[in-house]
Amino acid sequence: MLTKWMHTLIDTLVASGVRDFVISPGSRSTPLAIAAFLHPSSRTHVLVDERSASFFALGLTRTEERVRPVALICTSGTAATNYYSAVTEANIFELPLIVLTADRPHELRNVGAPQAIDQVGLYGKQVRHAFDLPLAEEASLPYVAHVAQRATLLSLTEPAGPVQINVPLREPLVPELDLLRTGRPVGVLPEPTPGVNDALATALQEERLLFVLGPQLTAADSQVVISYAKQAGIPVLADPLSQGRQSHDAHVFAYYDTWLKHPATAQYVRPDRIIRFGAMPTSKPYLLWSRDIPTTVVGHPGNWRDPQLHSDFVIGHARQLTHYISVPHDPAYLTLLQQAERRVAAAFATIDQEEMTEYNVVRALATLQDGSLFVSNSMPIRDVDTFLPTGTPLRLLANRGANGIDGILSSALGATFDATHRYLLVGDLAFIHDINGLMTARTLPLTIILVNNAGGGIFSFLPQQQLEQEVFEPLFGTPQHLDFASLASGYGVTYQAIDSIAALRQALAEETNVTRILEVKTTRTENVQMHRSIWDVTNHALAEVFQ
Amino acid sequence: MLTKWMHTLIDTLVASGVRDFVISPGSRSTPLAIAAFLHPSSRTHVLVDERSASFFALGLTRTEERVRPVALICTSGTAATNYYSAVTEANIFELPLIVLTADRPHELRNVGAPQAIDQVGLYGKQVRHAFDLPLAEEASLPYVAHVAQRATLLSLTEPAGPVQINVPLREPLVPELDLLRTGRPVGVLPEPTPGVNDALATALQEERLLFVLGPQLTAADSQVVISYAKQAGIPVLADPLSQGRQSHDAHVFAYYDTWLKHPATAQYVRPDRIIRFGAMPTSKPYLLWSRDIPTTVVGHPGNWRDPQLHSDFVIGHARQLTHYISVPHDPAYLTLLQQAERRVAAAFATIDQEEMTEYNVVRALATLQDGSLFVSNSMPIRDVDTFLPTGTPLRLLANRGANGIDGILSSALGATFDATHRYLLVGDLAFIHDINGLMTARTLPLTIILVNNAGGGIFSFLPQQQLEQEVFEPLFGTPQHLDFASLASGYGVTYQAIDSIAALRQALAEETNVTRILEVKTTRTENVQMHRSIWDVTNHALAEVFQ
Repeated sequence: MLTKWMHTLIDTLVASGVRDFVISPGSRSTPLAIAAFLHPSSRTHVLVDERSASFFALGLTRTEERVRPVALICTSGTAATNYYSAVTEANIFELPLIVLTADRPHELRNVGAPQAIDQVGLYGKQVRHAFDLPLAEEASLPYVAHVAQRATLLSLTEPAGPVQINVPLREPLVPELDLLRTGRPVGVLPEPTPGVNDALATALQEERLLFVLGPQLTAADSQVVISYAKQAGIPVLADPLSQGRQSHDAHVFAYYDTWLKHPATAQYVRPDRIIRFGAMPTSKPYLLWSRDIPTTVVGHPGNWRDPQLHSDFVIGHARQLTHYISVPHDPAYLTLLQQAERRVAAAFATIDQEEMTEYNVVRALATLQDGSLFVSNSMPIRDVDTFLPTGTPLRLLANRGANGIDGILSSALGATFDATHRYLLVGDLAFIHDINGLMTARTLPLTIILVNNAGGGIFSFLPQQQLEQEVFEPLFGTPQHLDFASLASGYGVTYQAIDSIAALRQALAEETNVTRILEVKTTRTENVQMHRSIWDVTNHALAEVFQ
Repeated sequence: MLTKWMHTLIDTLVASGVRDFVISPGSRSTPLAIAAFLHPSSRTHVLVDERSASFFALGLTRTEERVRPVALICTSGTAATNYYSAVTEANIFELPLIVLTADRPHELRNVGAPQAIDQVGLYGKQVRHAFDLPLAEEASLPYVAHVAQRATLLSLTEPAGPVQINVPLREPLVPELDLLRTGRPVGVLPEPTPGVNDALATALQEERLLFVLGPQLTAADSQVVISYAKQAGIPVLADPLSQGRQSHDAHVFAYYDTWLKHPATAQYVRPDRIIRFGAMPTSKPYLLWSRDIPTTVVGHPGNWRDPQLHSDFVIGHARQLTHYISVPHDPAYLTLLQQAERRVAAAFATIDQEEMTEYNVVRALATLQDGSLFVSNSMPIRDVDTFLPTGTPLRLLANRGANGIDGILSSALGATFDATHRYLLVGDLAFIHDINGLMTARTLPLTIILVNNAGGGIFSFLPQQQLEQEVFEPLFGTPQHLDFASLASGYGVTYQAIDSIAALRQALAEETNVTRILEVKTTRTENVQMHRSIWDVTNHALAEVFQ
């Protein structure tokens, strides 16, 4: 019965569209792991550390075109609690994780049996639904199939997100293998059906209109918005994670983080209305500037992305724009933004391109011709947002749901799984937080650009930097003094110290099929100064036009 | 207001008995971290990886005498989810963790703001209570003090356990420092008040009575039981984690895991009734043998530790025995157990003491004269249970609530914090799972006995070992091929390859004030054979008396 039960569960998941199973070893989960491993249409990935495993699965959900459901399998006990962070990110970033938690049978729950915790509803409000299966028995086979199909569809339906299936299992745990070697092909995923709401059509009528592409749009969706904007003459601000910066286009702007820092420019470029697609952009100057500009947020109420509480929320989707005929807009507004963008571009061009700064690290990455770049939270995503130009043909990825620095390396390995070239830009603290991801990195060649400023660089940009040193360093600086060359060697990956931007460009240009850590050492205090001096240059350039 | 608010919260925690604050860096948590850091009576520990931090705090709760409350501080977002595993262990193992989760203010929750997740009640059923504070304001200062005191008392009251205090904070986040440098001394913890129930007195009347000391008793509680047993002539089986094996005593038995594996012996030594103090012992032969023996479990219903569902559960505590006058018992039963114990001891003495086996690793540890030994889950705790003799003057610790292999190194660092000599026995997979604990290990000298059998050794003892190799190795063996010498160097700790038991004994005998990894390489297949050959020897010895 156990074998048939497991086969029904796993085979129905596969037939519903789940191809990838990310497994962490354990005893109670034995039949789940074996059934997933032997299924003829499945692909399995085994990662020892459940936290890394869950972020790897989170990354795997993100194909170029759309999301795909990915299943996690772990044993009973605290194993499942290690998934919590990735489950939470999946909840907010709307990624379809199906979490299969093996459990002890009911009579061993909460009675002091080993490796038994209360797993029913373990993820609380962070999942779309939590199923708790009965023990294996003939009568409820149709229910198992129902749960497998329903969990997959639930995980994919907007807002997509995580689903838990708790699977109690009684010994003996080793199934018969023959039946498990059979099964159906991977099912075709249903097309998402965007909600349609004519409120968007009304907002499109405003004269000085600005489009904003936030994180969490596919390249295809961003292109729909950009096409419409080009026909209508509407400028578009493109967050790097919207994929809107991949091509160079006179309607698309990348440097707004810089020109909105300049008060006069910010005043000049105010639109009558912003229409935002996707999540809130990374840029803090944008956040502050747009606070009192009427904004229409296009999204769905299940994940209401309006931290400014504009309350002009429209249920809809970028794809709706294909149904609308564009109305031409005043070209003067577009010209104004183009001026600002050109001034910043010209100012950036005057900056020494060889200095070891985080600016030049991002510019070196912008020379890459193809591949996927995963960007860590904290400073890297901010630097990429500020400095990455349009016309950068990279797919850009990050965990921008809850913005944690946990699970970054594993997320990158999952999210770049299908790419021909894989890159990760990460700081030292985030890198070390998920160092165990290196166990997987050995088999998935990844170029890791590790910006090591010996601690928490972001705090040097925040009000905490005013604190006296004996409070700042132990609580915020937190240097860890790790030897990354030795760590690389311990995990069996390649290491290279990068001592110039030229060396970085050269290393990036090399074809390689191993995982490499390219360590770029910077210092936190110099880094702040360099950022400040760049702002001086750009503010000066902008002041010549906008005052 | 923020400063006064924070001072009230932290100072009341301290005055209620919280001395230790374990902090992970972050921005939103700034005022919490600074207030804890500056308090004149506090002790703070900063760990970058929240998962490691939480297990370190979990360990810190465990002083020799009793538990003490320890506070955790993290920033908003997924940081708090990384605590989930340690919170769950604290729930089951009854350890007083006070989790202070910094949160975004209400208007930034669930509206797409960065680093904001739904943290209210994040730990679901795993905590004793979850408080959600209001934003800082004068009117609710008395409430903050109430919550701080109540959370501390709740965390300590049987069953002790974790409590969450969610702390929403609005910018600006940097408090004034002067007030925060003042505060009260650490409060005296209230004495636990054991429940008293005369059902225990009745159970004590049985003729062939057996006491069992499970994990999770203090040394003092175990001594109370042993003293009573000596007066009454009752034999005592002592799990290593009960601290009952620290002294050598004719009434205390350590080798029951071995003699209960021998069917005839197991039959001879059946008592009329077992009275168990503490959690279920580690030994699986004990579990199977005692299944149909009438057993009285002494504990409290909040954490019902009776996986065999005997239902003869008594609300009470080991300390009650000091109130009872002992009734002498039949000495023949005690003699019987002493025979079994002597046979096993004699058989063990015939085993080659120099072979590189996990048996001899445990025996080498048994020669240590003082200190605390933390034992990992999976194989190490089983080996210690089977092979560690009475008269081993070590304090023995493990995470035996949920029995996870996560957070082991950090738990060890916390749990041995006060010890003069600190040891950890751990396998390779558990060690790597919490490798980030090494960042803390640099400042807390610990001798790590790392038994590296390149993967999941325990599965070679379980039914999974029958599986064909191409299923077994990728799903259960999971060798990771790590170079621990390089990893040690990367984290800045000392490494030594151990190639003989004599070298291990010598290394253990050395006085040192640095953290050392002593790597003992074994192979999984040989290890199974060696365990089997030891059982052959002991079964043979037992068969000469019991048949």
